[in-house]
Amino acid sequence: MTTITSVSVTDIRFPTSLSMDGSDAMNKDGDYSAAYVHIVTDDPDLAGFGFTFTIGRGNDLCVEAARQRALPLIGREVAEVIGDLGATYRDLQSDSQLRWLGPDKGVIHLALAAVMNAVWDLAARAAGVPLWQLLAEMSPEQLVDAADLRYLSDALTREEAIAILAELAPTRQQRIAELQGTGYPCYTTSAGWLGYSDEKLRRLCQEAVDAGYRHVKLKVGANLDEDIRRLSIAREVIGPDAALMIDANQVWDVPQAIEWVNALAPFAPLWIEEPTSPDDVLGHAAIRRAVAPIGVASGEHGMNRVLFKQMFQAGALDFCQLDSARLGSVNEILAVYLMAKKFGVPVCPHAGGVGLCELVQHLSVFDYVAVSGSLEGRVTEYVDHLHEHFVEPCIVEAGAYRLPMAPGYSAEMHPASIERFRFPDGDYWAGAASESSSWRKSSIASR
Amino acid sequence: MTTITSVSVTDIRFPTSLSMDGSDAMNKDGDYSAAYVHIVTDDPDLAGFGFTFTIGRGNDLCVEAARQRALPLIGREVAEVIGDLGATYRDLQSDSQLRWLGPDKGVIHLALAAVMNAVWDLAARAAGVPLWQLLAEMSPEQLVDAADLRYLSDALTREEAIAILAELAPTRQQRIAELQGTGYPCYTTSAGWLGYSDEKLRRLCQEAVDAGYRHVKLKVGANLDEDIRRLSIAREVIGPDAALMIDANQVWDVPQAIEWVNALAPFAPLWIEEPTSPDDVLGHAAIRRAVAPIGVASGEHGMNRVLFKQMFQAGALDFCQLDSARLGSVNEILAVYLMAKKFGVPVCPHAGGVGLCELVQHLSVFDYVAVSGSLEGRVTEYVDHLHEHFVEPCIVEAGAYRLPMAPGYSAEMHPASIERFRFPDGDYWAGAASESSSWRKSSIASR
Repeated sequence: MTTITSVSVTDIRFPTSLSMDGSDAMNKDGDYSAAYVHIVTDDPDLAGFGFTFTIGRGNDLCVEAARQRALPLIGREVAEVIGDLGATYRDLQSDSQLRWLGPDKGVIHLALAAVMNAVWDLAARAAGVPLWQLLAEMSPEQLVDAADLRYLSDALTREEAIAILAELAPTRQQRIAELQGTGYPCYTTSAGWLGYSDEKLRRLCQEAVDAGYRHVKLKVGANLDEDIRRLSIAREVIGPDAALMIDANQVWDVPQAIEWVNALAPFAPLWIEEPTSPDDVLGHAAIRRAVAPIGVASGEHGMNRVLFKQMFQAGALDFCQLDSARLGSVNEILAVYLMAKKFGVPVCPHAGGVGLCELVQHLSVFDYVAVSGSLEGRVTEYVDHLHEHFVEPCIVEAGAYRLPMAPGYSAEMHPASIERFRFPDGDYWAGAASESSSWRKSSIASR
Repeated sequence: MTTITSVSVTDIRFPTSLSMDGSDAMNKDGDYSAAYVHIVTDDPDLAGFGFTFTIGRGNDLCVEAARQRALPLIGREVAEVIGDLGATYRDLQSDSQLRWLGPDKGVIHLALAAVMNAVWDLAARAAGVPLWQLLAEMSPEQLVDAADLRYLSDALTREEAIAILAELAPTRQQRIAELQGTGYPCYTTSAGWLGYSDEKLRRLCQEAVDAGYRHVKLKVGANLDEDIRRLSIAREVIGPDAALMIDANQVWDVPQAIEWVNALAPFAPLWIEEPTSPDDVLGHAAIRRAVAPIGVASGEHGMNRVLFKQMFQAGALDFCQLDSARLGSVNEILAVYLMAKKFGVPVCPHAGGVGLCELVQHLSVFDYVAVSGSLEGRVTEYVDHLHEHFVEPCIVEAGAYRLPMAPGYSAEMHPASIERFRFPDGDYWAGAASESSSWRKSSIASR
């Protein structure tokens, strides 16, 4: 019997604030970071890797929370842990004392995501298949048993969930074969960070078009005149038919969002992303009514399935952008996909950050194969950052994710990257501590 | 000039799980805890004390988060920090990297509450008045400047907020004089924890009536037959005219909540508290429609002002139970009180825990004096636990909080209590670590 012998959690931070990669109207100086979980077993060939994503300070809080979340796994048999992934999730999630700190939100939920992502990675590695395939080989009942449906029965019953999955089960193989040819469509955010110059914006938009992308996303919300200038450049480069998305990263109140987005309507954006507080279901619904036909997209800060349930019930979203490192891993994500299907909302997962692209490629493939059965209105985020740190990086060609084929959830990082960017004692940060630039001092000071 | 020289944050845990105090259908074994903040200045006679409340494991996460949240205060002049409490709040709250872990929810927000509670305590001590009086002496404009109105303008504008406060400003003194005579009405939850026997329940209900309470609250939701039996006992003891409240602590899905509460309707509860997920605005609204005239109460897990805004917009609550250690201190609480006033929802703050009664007495007094001007439908929670650890414990007589008169927010704990219950190295826990009962081991193991 293979047993889990330990779980290590590491604070890994990349100094992305140096280059203004990832800059937007709310998040001006992120150092993209991961609370990285490594489940160690007594079989040297079997481990599980997972993480949650943060933007710097506070990553240590997620690390410590994940360490505590993972304690119940230590000493248990792998077969038992991965044999009932719903039970494993509920066991970790239901700690009644940690629950007080949420429930199901903030640091303790990010930590649950990190740990359960590693458990799902372990399960897929044990089966010798990529995560999307592990899921695609589960029956409707097995998938629903793994899903967290608590608090959802007024929107989706267990029977409805099984029926949704059963409808597409007989034809899963043909959609897998199709995606093996085409990949899963994606769009790029790499072009449009706020901190970039007009020249860099123009060049990156052109590069995106040349690389086969049909969707380009720009950050907005800091200054209306600048937004108009930048959107003019982008629309000019990508042409009238490609999709242009805009992302405000929560900077507006509801009335301001309506006014600002309507001022950008001449550029015909496909969606406005995160127009206001991510918690504001009714606000998103009001904005959506007021800015149509521009769509409303949100979800990267969507804290849990109960928030998404209400977003769907209130008709607040045109596009659901669930986050693979914020929701409670596949268990909670399954519930959101099933609700999205019932309510007819396409899921376009949030990605970027550290390793989020690696994770969401599996989710999008699974969605098409087993839940939605449709690519209409669906496009998954892709940001060309930090993939070099992953052992099995995602591969994007001609505006599409190629199907990942290595066993697992693609979450494993290179040991050399961990050594270098471990905070605060990795080679990079130990060196940075002796230097003087202010952002480094502030990162160091947070310890 | 007086300067803040350091901020210490201490992990304090009380072994309340031993006595089943605080047991309910969701929280079976809480060890009531505080992440306790002490703002130290170079004036030995001036300090600030505050905390957030948790139920055990994870309190260390709040401690570390509060330590990080408080870093920007160190080295600053007290006069500047307390001279613009809105600016101080926004400065601490807006850390763009920590924000990713919320925003405004979970561990980082609990930590903000702990730190800003200490800042408000510091401000009131510097002024030599109790917190409620500090607030009652602020002009409508000053109060609104301190309030966090971000994301609320679709429900409450700055102008509306000022108008609400201006209406009652001329008559504040007469309501203060009134409360100095009567105190602020409260109800007791001490009688109804799930872990208590029928005999203890009967005795405690009788004691509550004898002590002058006109409201008694019972925990429900674990077993319907037992709930019926316990409510029968309680109603028999308190009589038909006293108010009986029930509290499910989030155990139900929406349809189940409706069915269960209606089954308890014969006992004529005044409210059902936390019938489902605290995040479920639309769920609470649906339950409220289906169980009327039984009221719906929620808020102790209400994560932030955006959630409360929606609760009011959706008509989801009959009673708003905001929490003084979960919302971002007085800054965010002011916003919720102002919205509650506009939407006509009485605020009956959550208390109990560690020191929450000490805090909320100030808030309730301020609400009556300056915001609502009404006691109708208002009653503040009181639980007779752990007050002995506070330097200025709240005083309840004849079912009412006496007005606290000592300078500050009543948040300071006795040094001897801190020494004894500091986790894990206080005298109590260091002794417990050498013993063998399982709950102690599990608490210790969480480190």
